[in-house]
Amino acid sequence: MTGRDAPSPVTRQLARFVAGSRWADIAEPVRKEALRSILNGFGAALGGSSDQATVRMLETLQPFSATPSASIVGHRTRVDMLTAAFLNAVVVNVFDFDDTHEGTIIHPTAPVAPAVFALAEGRPRITGEALLHAFVLGVEVECRLGNAVSPGHYRRGWHITSTCGVFGAAAAAGKLLGLDEERLVWALGNASAQSSGLIETLGTMAKSVGVGNSARNGIVAALLAANGVAGPEQPIEGPRGFMRVTCDAPDFGAVTQGLGEHWELMRNMYKPYPCGVVLNPVIDACLEIGRKPSFSAASVERVTVAGHPLLKERTDRPSPASGREAQVSAQHAVAVSLLRASAGVADFSDAAVGDPDVQRLRRLVQPIEIDPSLAVEAARVTVELHGGARLETTIEVASGSLEKPLSDDQLEAKVKALAAYGCPQVDPQALIDRIWNLPQATDAGSVMDAARPL
Amino acid sequence: MTGRDAPSPVTRQLARFVAGSRWADIAEPVRKEALRSILNGFGAALGGSSDQATVRMLETLQPFSATPSASIVGHRTRVDMLTAAFLNAVVVNVFDFDDTHEGTIIHPTAPVAPAVFALAEGRPRITGEALLHAFVLGVEVECRLGNAVSPGHYRRGWHITSTCGVFGAAAAAGKLLGLDEERLVWALGNASAQSSGLIETLGTMAKSVGVGNSARNGIVAALLAANGVAGPEQPIEGPRGFMRVTCDAPDFGAVTQGLGEHWELMRNMYKPYPCGVVLNPVIDACLEIGRKPSFSAASVERVTVAGHPLLKERTDRPSPASGREAQVSAQHAVAVSLLRASAGVADFSDAAVGDPDVQRLRRLVQPIEIDPSLAVEAARVTVELHGGARLETTIEVASGSLEKPLSDDQLEAKVKALAAYGCPQVDPQALIDRIWNLPQATDAGSVMDAARPL
Repeated sequence: MTGRDAPSPVTRQLARFVAGSRWADIAEPVRKEALRSILNGFGAALGGSSDQATVRMLETLQPFSATPSASIVGHRTRVDMLTAAFLNAVVVNVFDFDDTHEGTIIHPTAPVAPAVFALAEGRPRITGEALLHAFVLGVEVECRLGNAVSPGHYRRGWHITSTCGVFGAAAAAGKLLGLDEERLVWALGNASAQSSGLIETLGTMAKSVGVGNSARNGIVAALLAANGVAGPEQPIEGPRGFMRVTCDAPDFGAVTQGLGEHWELMRNMYKPYPCGVVLNPVIDACLEIGRKPSFSAASVERVTVAGHPLLKERTDRPSPASGREAQVSAQHAVAVSLLRASAGVADFSDAAVGDPDVQRLRRLVQPIEIDPSLAVEAARVTVELHGGARLETTIEVASGSLEKPLSDDQLEAKVKALAAYGCPQVDPQALIDRIWNLPQATDAGSVMDAARPL
Repeated sequence: MTGRDAPSPVTRQLARFVAGSRWADIAEPVRKEALRSILNGFGAALGGSSDQATVRMLETLQPFSATPSASIVGHRTRVDMLTAAFLNAVVVNVFDFDDTHEGTIIHPTAPVAPAVFALAEGRPRITGEALLHAFVLGVEVECRLGNAVSPGHYRRGWHITSTCGVFGAAAAAGKLLGLDEERLVWALGNASAQSSGLIETLGTMAKSVGVGNSARNGIVAALLAANGVAGPEQPIEGPRGFMRVTCDAPDFGAVTQGLGEHWELMRNMYKPYPCGVVLNPVIDACLEIGRKPSFSAASVERVTVAGHPLLKERTDRPSPASGREAQVSAQHAVAVSLLRASAGVADFSDAAVGDPDVQRLRRLVQPIEIDPSLAVEAARVTVELHGGARLETTIEVASGSLEKPLSDDQLEAKVKALAAYGCPQVDPQALIDRIWNLPQATDAGSVMDAARPL
């Protein structure tokens, strides 16, 4: 059962676990984290809902949508549940401002939540508890598979959110459909035949094709299984199954060790800023400095950033040419967060990159210094002002990390900011309230009513 | 440009080739082979149209089909073109009685033909020439990618028909949509994000989920590209692109060497019998012996089969338990072909396995003898009759191989036999006539009218 050399009947164990799990088995902190993940996911989705990738994909797929039974976050148009699952996965993940699972860097919510919400809208009354339960199990399946194939899988070139996500979406959809153990094995088998997504596509709209499919095809996998489309017994651990084919050194035991005892959702993180995570402590430091009474952006003479070698390697980029590049530029992150006292999506747009005030401040940021004493979660920023004043802040643990998670209030603020950016026609407070109230909801799909423009 | 270490801009070269190709560039033998591939594909599809995998997938997907603009071979129901592409790829390939590309063992027609026929039905008038042209190019793209990742790709566990097929379907669909070079690069990028399919699923219905998606998602990839959904510059050859991620030793040069000079369709083969290809010479020999005047099934005392070690390894199976197992049983193949003078789908069904006469003859077939002098395409069968007569035939080259391809007449007979087996309500002659007449057709989609039951 343990170790790299002893595959156990992994697929069947997962299927049995999902089929047998009861809501009462899910501890309160896990339930809470499910809500926080979903809240963060809706925020990311509102922010991404008007992005061109989203708009073009909707235009392309709408003619192939049947009964308009499900919603797309931020859009009035309704589509069938498969198309909705696809598009909602796209909007959640398009900016990479969604959640991150520690260790695998899977974005767990994007494939799973759109699948369960589409089913909740498209099928007769599914309660909030049922939806949350399925979501928890789906995230568990995708992240455990991710653990088992990490780090080799991503390193080889697989976009792990898409490739593992389809299994999570299939498990979650299968749970909502009430599949038994055997049919859940088939659902995972049907998912295995559809697992795809390449790192090469990152940075292009094609990334979202893989992510969208993970949610859509998870539902397809479960619906097919429900209807008797059978798969192999060991799609995950078999000799030509998912784990061995996509990873050179899979850890079979990692899939099932401690199943039901510890939960992967507890390792989920929410980004405070829409940029590379190594920049989190830098931005934290700048925002803190900006709040000091003696600080004035106009008086800045010079800014020094010190951090881990990875920080320099990935983000020492003094002149980003686009919003996308700015997301991995320490100089840009420092400039906007000092100048605007914020670091939201609008601060990493093409417009922000071209803002003359941002450009002026950016030029005052020195090349990143490496300080071997600082961990990758840490950074030190020193601002020298005209007249000799010197403001310095060291962040040991960045916000958004597991050690310093975003508070509920911070998550709500993130949702509101993203709604204002991507879809001002949605009332974020109404949506936030419905999400927090999901455990009491008799119809989970009604959350989506608050995610559409009025 | 050549060799394993020098990646060239493979994706762009393919895109340029597809965009620039004209029908006049396609030589007559290639055009003819396209027609034969399509004819064989429709035959396989009629045979597979009533299989349970097909029926269950149709039931599951039909509620998500929008405008019923396209046909499913062997069915009255019409569905939207994405669903039709999925289901037609399933019916063509479900029995593995479709075509085989030498070297890669890709089934080239299943992903590509359903994509182009669905577009031909779903979009304004597409001529037979345009459809055939797109089909030729799609097969070229999928098989060249297959060449470039063989043998490592399949050996690693990838179902090469599905994984390479989606690129072929995308290229073919892109050609029919009139995409320019840039958009064809995007289409191949969108295909790369959807390339999937595991060997572990073979032998189960889940195999067909991968194959169905290859055709469907190829169209999606092209439609998205047409609508501005951009992909990476090197989805195929890039550092985290298709070739490196799915194959440990890709041959980059193989994708583009001699592009437009030799055509992969000329390496396409059509199965005479619905079973493992190593059995072809054994069945050829038995059918030949059965035609000898002195032969009588009732007089058989003992049958000896001699062949290549692979024949023994894969097919020495005296008591198959199911039709599926009978497809890799030399003893069963010998029994039915001697007894019934035929070796069609009905002869490898569960019913045939249970036929007492077949069982009786099967018991007279000895364990396979290895003869090192016989190639894998060859076999020798010796039948001893009561009274001492001895009939022996050696087949050096099996029918269905590139050296001894099925004639047009044999292909037509195959189509008719498969129609009778899987869909007797279709008039195969009318369908055969329309296929041969495709080069003159002003509306290629009209072929599908003859593939539906009246």
